[in-house]
Amino acid sequence: MATIKDVAEKAGVTVTTVSRVLNNRGYISEETREKVYRVMREMQYQPNEIARSLSRKKTMILGMIIPTIAHPFFAELTNYIEKHASKLGYKILLCNSRMDQGKEKEYIDMLTSNRVDGMFMSSHTLEVDEYKKLKQPIITFDRRIADIPYVSSENEQGGIYAAELLLKKGCRRIAHITGNLGLDLLSNQRTNGFVKSLRGRGVEPIVFELGPDVFDSEGYERVITELLEQYPDIDGIFASGDILAMNVIKVCMSKGIDIPGRIKLIGYDDIEMASLVSPALTTIRQPLEEIAKRAVQLLDGLIRGEEVQHDNVLPVTLVERSTT
Amino acid sequence: MATIKDVAEKAGVTVTTVSRVLNNRGYISEETREKVYRVMREMQYQPNEIARSLSRKKTMILGMIIPTIAHPFFAELTNYIEKHASKLGYKILLCNSRMDQGKEKEYIDMLTSNRVDGMFMSSHTLEVDEYKKLKQPIITFDRRIADIPYVSSENEQGGIYAAELLLKKGCRRIAHITGNLGLDLLSNQRTNGFVKSLRGRGVEPIVFELGPDVFDSEGYERVITELLEQYPDIDGIFASGDILAMNVIKVCMSKGIDIPGRIKLIGYDDIEMASLVSPALTTIRQPLEEIAKRAVQLLDGLIRGEEVQHDNVLPVTLVERSTT
Repeated sequence: MATIKDVAEKAGVTVTTVSRVLNNRGYISEETREKVYRVMREMQYQPNEIARSLSRKKTMILGMIIPTIAHPFFAELTNYIEKHASKLGYKILLCNSRMDQGKEKEYIDMLTSNRVDGMFMSSHTLEVDEYKKLKQPIITFDRRIADIPYVSSENEQGGIYAAELLLKKGCRRIAHITGNLGLDLLSNQRTNGFVKSLRGRGVEPIVFELGPDVFDSEGYERVITELLEQYPDIDGIFASGDILAMNVIKVCMSKGIDIPGRIKLIGYDDIEMASLVSPALTTIRQPLEEIAKRAVQLLDGLIRGEEVQHDNVLPVTLVERSTT
Repeated sequence: MATIKDVAEKAGVTVTTVSRVLNNRGYISEETREKVYRVMREMQYQPNEIARSLSRKKTMILGMIIPTIAHPFFAELTNYIEKHASKLGYKILLCNSRMDQGKEKEYIDMLTSNRVDGMFMSSHTLEVDEYKKLKQPIITFDRRIADIPYVSSENEQGGIYAAELLLKKGCRRIAHITGNLGLDLLSNQRTNGFVKSLRGRGVEPIVFELGPDVFDSEGYERVITELLEQYPDIDGIFASGDILAMNVIKVCMSKGIDIPGRIKLIGYDDIEMASLVSPALTTIRQPLEEIAKRAVQLLDGLIRGEEVQHDNVLPVTLVERSTT
């Protein structure tokens, strides 16, 4: 196989010049660049990427720590992250952390041992101390940890939109089902905005919190069934995620409860499936692609040693469909 | 930061011994191993993973080439791949290829330049020649390329199950909507099994093939609407994927066509969402976790230089829910 020395010789340049072309570093004339690339193609030269990362101290790999890629919200977010990261030449290493806290620690070790250039963190575990210790670039989603920059959306406003719509539609016995509020996530502000807005109109909502382990349909169904049995007069539900809301539709159908006839329902996120289910789900749309794009810009900036904006909060919108 | 030399000195062993412990290579007594690990912990030694991969010629990273992680089928498959690969110490590099054929080529180059130890390939592009040239380990899904080992499920049997159920339920005007049959995928056998089985019973199905670019809900809806308008007397539909089937439900609902009253519907895959939609989808279940587990075992075997089984076809099952 051709080496960098062979390429340099055939192109009539120094090894340093070929290296500069490969690493896009230093001044190289367009003519030289083209010649080097042509020779590399002719000789079918394949740079050894690992050796290159060792010398550049860059792997061009970014870690994406999420609870599980099987959840459509994280699948769609990761899809956009990969789309925008790849435009800058980065690859994405998938880190599903949820089932195993030890795995998250392992991913952080990987960051420390320089296998990735930076990380996106959207994990739901409580172990934030490990992140504070790191000097390497991290961007979090919906989470404020020390001085790590984060990307989020207007969670409180999302909660307010949901409250206002349910009230406008005449709901008075209103429930809110949310993930575990014990985790220090910015998404908890959805609940704050929702509850505050209802109270301001004299309505006290029933808040149902999922346990920290409830993250699958079976768990969701159990909680929803319990809620509907305990409060049979509920006429409006705000679920803190679309998948959760879809489970509400499923449980209501099985109990013969008409949506939106007897219960109005609002989800959160606007994943692709939200418009596909029947009835199509009214939801609060997070601008997923914009969130991903911003996160990639921020992480790339940190990797390049730039100062970046610490708080990045993007707008949400109300999407009315058939469940309200 | 502590170096490997510092660790060796403090543990009273040679650098070679520390390196052997790290790489799990050569004979090391349990006592020595424990001592080295203890000193590494005490000194907070972090091995430089890139330097290690250079010396081991292994990165412990596997590429996963799929059309898009935003599609629930690939998200769930990737989730299981990651789960089983991580048990063997591998990380997964996510390669979304669909929107860009150049990207797939880039991923293959990455394999050639030794950044990943092996690859799983579940892409839908036609460029198979690039794969044939490679000497590095690859496992494909639902695709037979030269002597590359593949994992698949009983696609033909899945088609037969669907045909038999629709006939049993009294359907006589039957349609089949499938992905592009021009791609040389083993999943095309679903269509073969379905069509052959119906013809054997004197029923000629209407086969509707999606264009190679139709991979989103908008495209699906257009094709389904066209089918229903062209053949208003259809009483049974077999869709070659669950997401496609969910789009059939959506279009039928919007047209006031009752499922299963007027049209019986069967999907394929049994993604998690299949049991969540209303009406819950009857489908052909692919054993996703088993497929992923087998693929990981095969790729790990190839990386270790073992001979592995070329054809790996796992059983499918019929899951009857509310659409038939």
